Amino acid sequence: MRQLAKELNVSVATVSKALNDSHEISEKTKRKVLEGASRLNYTINPYASSLRNKKSKTIAVILPDVADYFFSLAIKGIQSVAEHSGYHVLIYLSHEKFSNEIAIIEDCKSGRVDGVLISVTSETSSADHFLKLRQENIPIVFFDRAFEGFPGSKVITNDFDCGKMAALHLLKNGCRKIAFLSVSSCLGICRKRAEGFKAAATALKMRTHSDVVILDTENNQDLQYKIRKLLSSKNRPDGVVASVERVAMAVYLVCQEIGISIPSELKVVAFSAIETASILNPSLTTISQPAFEMGRTAAELLFKQMKKKSTDSDEETIMIPSTLIERSSSSALA
Amino acid sequence: MRQLAKELNVSVATVSKALNDSHEISEKTKRKVLEGASRLNYTINPYASSLRNKKSKTIAVILPDVADYFFSLAIKGIQSVAEHSGYHVLIYLSHEKFSNEIAIIEDCKSGRVDGVLISVTSETSSADHFLKLRQENIPIVFFDRAFEGFPGSKVITNDFDCGKMAALHLLKNGCRKIAFLSVSSCLGICRKRAEGFKAAATALKMRTHSDVVILDTENNQDLQYKIRKLLSSKNRPDGVVASVERVAMAVYLVCQEIGISIPSELKVVAFSAIETASILNPSLTTISQPAFEMGRTAAELLFKQMKKKSTDSDEETIMIPSTLIERSSSSALA
Repeated sequence: MRQLAKELNVSVATVSKALNDSHEISEKTKRKVLEGASRLNYTINPYASSLRNKKSKTIAVILPDVADYFFSLAIKGIQSVAEHSGYHVLIYLSHEKFSNEIAIIEDCKSGRVDGVLISVTSETSSADHFLKLRQENIPIVFFDRAFEGFPGSKVITNDFDCGKMAALHLLKNGCRKIAFLSVSSCLGICRKRAEGFKAAATALKMRTHSDVVILDTENNQDLQYKIRKLLSSKNRPDGVVASVERVAMAVYLVCQEIGISIPSELKVVAFSAIETASILNPSLTTISQPAFEMGRTAAELLFKQMKKKSTDSDEETIMIPSTLIERSSSSALA
Repeated sequence: MRQLAKELNVSVATVSKALNDSHEISEKTKRKVLEGASRLNYTINPYASSLRNKKSKTIAVILPDVADYFFSLAIKGIQSVAEHSGYHVLIYLSHEKFSNEIAIIEDCKSGRVDGVLISVTSETSSADHFLKLRQENIPIVFFDRAFEGFPGSKVITNDFDCGKMAALHLLKNGCRKIAFLSVSSCLGICRKRAEGFKAAATALKMRTHSDVVILDTENNQDLQYKIRKLLSSKNRPDGVVASVERVAMAVYLVCQEIGISIPSELKVVAFSAIETASILNPSLTTISQPAFEMGRTAAELLFKQMKKKSTDSDEETIMIPSTLIERSSSSALA
């Protein structure tokens, strides 16, 4: 930008404002700057800085995965709002990799999108990329998996309480050795669910044992391997809480494979929005997250922010509670 | 374009070539045309026609839905190829609406993406939008759900044979009145699966009855309503083939609700790549589609086309076969 400013004999601020399509800069100057920028091979922002003063009319949704039913339902909630506003929804998958997330946010800064909805990866450990996005005046709203260190708007559920609820449910139904199966030690929602779980187990510690197991893998084969090891051990739990849907599916597959009967030998509760919980064998007790509602609400927050000029003071947290739905997988023995 | 050509005193072809960043046009003329285009508020193609001569390094994947496990697996296959080439993958959802598909293809023409992978909606009834995309020199490859009237490259599976295989399997295991539950009369893959089904049933027509039922709805509640009606009738089938995964889930949920026992009262075979088929109650017999392979192969075809200059002569069809996996939902009575 400095080189360009020098060449055009204007200030760096003028170049910056022109590239950002500021109303303070005349059309003539904007054209001059754009022309110079392309001459210097400067990567301009083709949508936001266009002389056409057009929005991209697109929002990005960044997700770790779409195989999880929670996310496919959340997308429907988001799409219901976007369609109503005549916006396209672009879905980016981070596949639980922090490096992918950074590259995607970088791509979002190119003017492709007017706003971003995100559920962070289980590896996300800094908020620098989110800050940079906001510096470009592109609003970002977190849903479900928020990043705790970042003061942005978020739509979450009552993860701590639900972790507690799941543990109490297992203990009430006769478990004496319960384990919380977390997919990640970094991921905020897993940590909160685990903390709620531990709080309940500690309060009722008499003759009970509780454990938090970190499985930390994106690969389903590896996930099953780790669960097989846990459930084959002499000291195996008699009740587990699956922190996310794919952990529950892996527990079911492993139990089928090595012949552990649910619920008589192992009780299972899962954080999941899965539609087919009732037709699994046995039907699965779930902490059912309001996926559609969370997606819809997050999109509404984002559109509210996109209408405003600045993203400086946006910090709103909306909590939509989940509910425990008891089914056969955790039922007390007769 | 004509107005612009007149104003700049150049030919329409020159304007068109300049806007498409053709190597035949000088940088100076390109700049002049771009400047004129923005002055006239002409919607230029910000990526493809940019003077920076940069690719978007992005491909679009257009899907009807992500709740179907087939598509989430196919995405993984696509992503494995794209990542390797340093490309972003953007996912657009058409939600089975033809009008959405047209709007998305329009959006893809804006230079946002260098190529398109698509599984068409169940409503898609013309190929005009695909033709226009190809006129912009943006390659398109179909996977799973191809559009029959369009002479483009496609990656498909053996739908006819599998429909036949499913019918024969049900008849062999004792069914006398079988039905094929199709989600759409338009969708090519459903039609082929239904035709294979009918061919098998006709060949073995002695004392058997077969039917193709068109359910034609995107809404899951409505889908269940129609299936409930079918399975509550006096003349209900004793075996069904679900054309897609969500039909199978709806059949299971309805059977559970109205108390029909699978497989003793109703045998079920489903076209599905669902990972949890073995833990459903009862475990589900599937025609398992090679979803990951199909996504990977389609992406490879697309990248091959993107490397070439012209998309005129691209017409390659690759067939990857599906396989029948027998489980409890269709087992013969003892």
